[in-house]
Amino acid sequence: MQLPRIGLTQRTQKRKRKRKLKMEKWRATSNLRRSLKSILNRQLSSVSEFRYLNEKRSCQSSFNLIRDCKSLGQVNAIQHRCFSSASTLVQRNPSFSTLNSDDISYFKGLLGEKSVIQDEDRLETVNTDWMHKYKGSSKLLLLPRSTEEVAQILRYCNSRCLAVVPQGGNTGLVGGSVPVFDEVIVNVSSMNNIISFDKVSGILVCEAGCILENLISFLDNQGFIMPLDLGAKGSCQIGGNVSTNAGGLRLVRYGSLHGNVLGLEAVLANGDVLDMLGTLRKDNTGYDLKHLFIGSEGSLGIVTKVSILTPPKLSSVNIAFLACNDYSSCQKLLIEAKRKLGEILSAFEFLDTEAMNLVLHQLDGVRNPLPASMHNFYILIETTGSDESYNREKLEAFLLSSMEGGLISDGVLAQDINQASSFWRIREGVPEALMKAGAVYKYDLSLPVEKMYDLVDDMRIRLGDLAKVVGYGHLGDGNLHLNVSAPEYDDKILEQIEPYVYEWTSKHRGSISAEHGLGLMKANKIYYSKSAETVQTMASIKKLLDPNGILNPYKVLPHSLNS
Amino acid sequence: MQLPRIGLTQRTQKRKRKRKLKMEKWRATSNLRRSLKSILNRQLSSVSEFRYLNEKRSCQSSFNLIRDCKSLGQVNAIQHRCFSSASTLVQRNPSFSTLNSDDISYFKGLLGEKSVIQDEDRLETVNTDWMHKYKGSSKLLLLPRSTEEVAQILRYCNSRCLAVVPQGGNTGLVGGSVPVFDEVIVNVSSMNNIISFDKVSGILVCEAGCILENLISFLDNQGFIMPLDLGAKGSCQIGGNVSTNAGGLRLVRYGSLHGNVLGLEAVLANGDVLDMLGTLRKDNTGYDLKHLFIGSEGSLGIVTKVSILTPPKLSSVNIAFLACNDYSSCQKLLIEAKRKLGEILSAFEFLDTEAMNLVLHQLDGVRNPLPASMHNFYILIETTGSDESYNREKLEAFLLSSMEGGLISDGVLAQDINQASSFWRIREGVPEALMKAGAVYKYDLSLPVEKMYDLVDDMRIRLGDLAKVVGYGHLGDGNLHLNVSAPEYDDKILEQIEPYVYEWTSKHRGSISAEHGLGLMKANKIYYSKSAETVQTMASIKKLLDPNGILNPYKVLPHSLNS
Repeated sequence: MQLPRIGLTQRTQKRKRKRKLKMEKWRATSNLRRSLKSILNRQLSSVSEFRYLNEKRSCQSSFNLIRDCKSLGQVNAIQHRCFSSASTLVQRNPSFSTLNSDDISYFKGLLGEKSVIQDEDRLETVNTDWMHKYKGSSKLLLLPRSTEEVAQILRYCNSRCLAVVPQGGNTGLVGGSVPVFDEVIVNVSSMNNIISFDKVSGILVCEAGCILENLISFLDNQGFIMPLDLGAKGSCQIGGNVSTNAGGLRLVRYGSLHGNVLGLEAVLANGDVLDMLGTLRKDNTGYDLKHLFIGSEGSLGIVTKVSILTPPKLSSVNIAFLACNDYSSCQKLLIEAKRKLGEILSAFEFLDTEAMNLVLHQLDGVRNPLPASMHNFYILIETTGSDESYNREKLEAFLLSSMEGGLISDGVLAQDINQASSFWRIREGVPEALMKAGAVYKYDLSLPVEKMYDLVDDMRIRLGDLAKVVGYGHLGDGNLHLNVSAPEYDDKILEQIEPYVYEWTSKHRGSISAEHGLGLMKANKIYYSKSAETVQTMASIKKLLDPNGILNPYKVLPHSLNS
Repeated sequence: MQLPRIGLTQRTQKRKRKRKLKMEKWRATSNLRRSLKSILNRQLSSVSEFRYLNEKRSCQSSFNLIRDCKSLGQVNAIQHRCFSSASTLVQRNPSFSTLNSDDISYFKGLLGEKSVIQDEDRLETVNTDWMHKYKGSSKLLLLPRSTEEVAQILRYCNSRCLAVVPQGGNTGLVGGSVPVFDEVIVNVSSMNNIISFDKVSGILVCEAGCILENLISFLDNQGFIMPLDLGAKGSCQIGGNVSTNAGGLRLVRYGSLHGNVLGLEAVLANGDVLDMLGTLRKDNTGYDLKHLFIGSEGSLGIVTKVSILTPPKLSSVNIAFLACNDYSSCQKLLIEAKRKLGEILSAFEFLDTEAMNLVLHQLDGVRNPLPASMHNFYILIETTGSDESYNREKLEAFLLSSMEGGLISDGVLAQDINQASSFWRIREGVPEALMKAGAVYKYDLSLPVEKMYDLVDDMRIRLGDLAKVVGYGHLGDGNLHLNVSAPEYDDKILEQIEPYVYEWTSKHRGSISAEHGLGLMKANKIYYSKSAETVQTMASIKKLLDPNGILNPYKVLPHSLNS
């Protein structure tokens, strides 16, 4: 089917074409939109799984090492993990106790038999992260049903110096939600009640174990949406989302959880419960401690309840796929989109021509909706608003003025859900295409928008013919996915990339983890994004709130400060 | 001039009227809008000043007590302050040193003569808050010009155990920005450079001493706005705004500073500089410590630089003034406005009929734009968007559907800047009208929207004929201004209000300080809004970051925990 196209011509021709343009709108119902997202999410999940398994095959497997340790809870066991570009050496903290039968009896008395899990199959699942990249050797899973139970568990573990891993949906990407050694797993999935919802203010209060998708469905019936939406929404829990400061698809529109979470309840390592579960937009009474627990990956406390501001559901969604000649035009288009689409802009994604080439060559059934010629950059813009006809007109007017201004060289507007899906498929298909192309070195970076693509250019010069460099990501959020693609893994390539990429990111005040956190994987790399004084202050706060270091040990902070 | 009116009639009549409605739009240019706001702000400033001076006249003056202390820096001096409803007893912390000539020599060597102020007239100004309600007795004002100078000042003061008050524009309302005794005043007004502005991302980086209005003007030229706007913008500084988590006029649209501030640089009590000056929307590398300094009122560190996300400037502003029969309708209207105006809603203010009566009777030249009858509640709605004609139509359509749904009983849409000004004048004139009516007991509370007006009703029953109870405020933010108006101050009235209002607010998980902070005024009242465990954790963090307690002593935390 021929899509309506917008081409760059002289001003008079544009005016004529403007009159002729009959761009029809894709009016996505929220249900259709949801279906589309869940299909895409499923595809992406399998891609990620494949990727990490692939990496594992090329590396020394940590699982073999674990199997070699006959006493899994032993003091000073060492795990060495190597996944292409990631290498982590960890030593078990000798000050931690090991579980004994009295501990088990205590927990059974506290929680009941059914909530104290020692079954090997179930432990296998919760010891392993969803990518099968990290695996611990915990002998105990606890399933508390209330804040008080969480408090009593932590009070006991702290007194016994038993290390604890707080676990939600276990969908993290950096090894933050599974044990490194024999830590007790405290999974809050049984705490999954919605406590209240205020239809006037849109404020939802719920327990930490609520699955994100269930909250989305609940709110949908109330005419609201969650301010965050993730690929892992079918499994991830709001407590984990908050603890990792999850980003996701709606950040460009609704901002981070630091802005949307209004209150928390958290249990400290010593069992003290911090009731910060406010439901107020304004509250300037003392230090706003909840922010310490947003993004600290369960290392300062276990989040047990969450209060969150939810926006009203808006029904009108439009998607455009555009081409730009250079990165400068992409930036200018972003400025214009913020100004002219402002209040309805909900996604501004980009990919470069290398990314597009990969998608077109590697994925079946994907075609460039702008077939005339290959362009240097492609932009996907999504708008979401409350008024069907107006939003289409607004986006059309924006596209026409952007063409007249020379910012975009070509473009199409999705006319139905299939076209919308095909546009998203290009952008979301890049990771899968990269995997199919061979070995891939992946970096998820935040950088100032104006500098972002300089890194891609620099890497191309640096790597020359050694590998292809691909740039894509969330331009609207300043989040670059830098990927280096080669036929196979090669230490020569890795040496050219690291630590150069981290140093480059650090030099430009970027972040080496835009939204995934540090977990076990990047705990030792924190200094690339944070100053020594800041990290030292983090360690002091960790020491203050968790003097024995029992909460999620070996993670977030450098190992030298983490014991 | 007769304004176009929207009346409640039967459905068929409404339809006819809809066709006839020729509501013209007030197209405010940003300059006109700014002029309007600055006029209103000036009026409000003089009102506040008058109010507090009035309160002082009816109370024991703390200034007399200060004058009685011959040695102003003496150990164990006691200040007792009483302003109608507020009473504070403070004892000087005996562990603090007093200034000597060696200290002065050190500071002159560090900063130069001109930045070490001992002149009595200048000290009088910086020792006194802008309401003339609080007054300290500092003998020294320091004006650092760089972060390094701030660091060296604090390092020295910490080693000497000299207490310090960080000061910005000194526009706070709770005695947070002036000394209580002889603390050294560190005013960062000389640090007022804009460091960078990224027109792509809208991210501004500047020094803490930048005056808010100067930043607004700078951004206006760039086509952006600050995400906060305050009455005190001509004097207040961004460092102070951040340190107090200032709310202001744009919070309902852009959220709090916890969402908009992307990075900070802060100097700790020991002189360590925490460089957290990120310019990224996404950065999940460790604990997000900047939030500790947002709203901690300078008691954990001195903010020296700020990075903030600024939204694009939108040119179209529309204002409607509406009547509702009951509070339930006000709530429903808020839900509908969020849903139907969603992305363009920028203010949702309310006042009750008592407030309207006061304004009409006490203020010259103010009239009810809905003259047919007195209604129980009035709502002011403002929309701000990027499209002139669309926003008007959208607001009109919303008003018509709200009428048809029975939510509003009457309403007008401003046709020009004069009408817009007259609508805002009613809402903003309430404090002035209250002052003119006699004695007034004022409470600035955050409450769940659904409960908010119950407190007003309860207070009416409780006070009976003793006094009038007036309710108004920022309904969109859940921020109630509860005011009790009587011919004169009377202990019987106060006994009926306090601690009842605080207890009621606490019972409904509200906040006793929506946006002003705690400062000296409410430090001891923190437990009404925060749990004992949370306050204890705050005190632990204070002790960790400022072991000698030199930073802004006697404030924010209860005095029992503050020394």
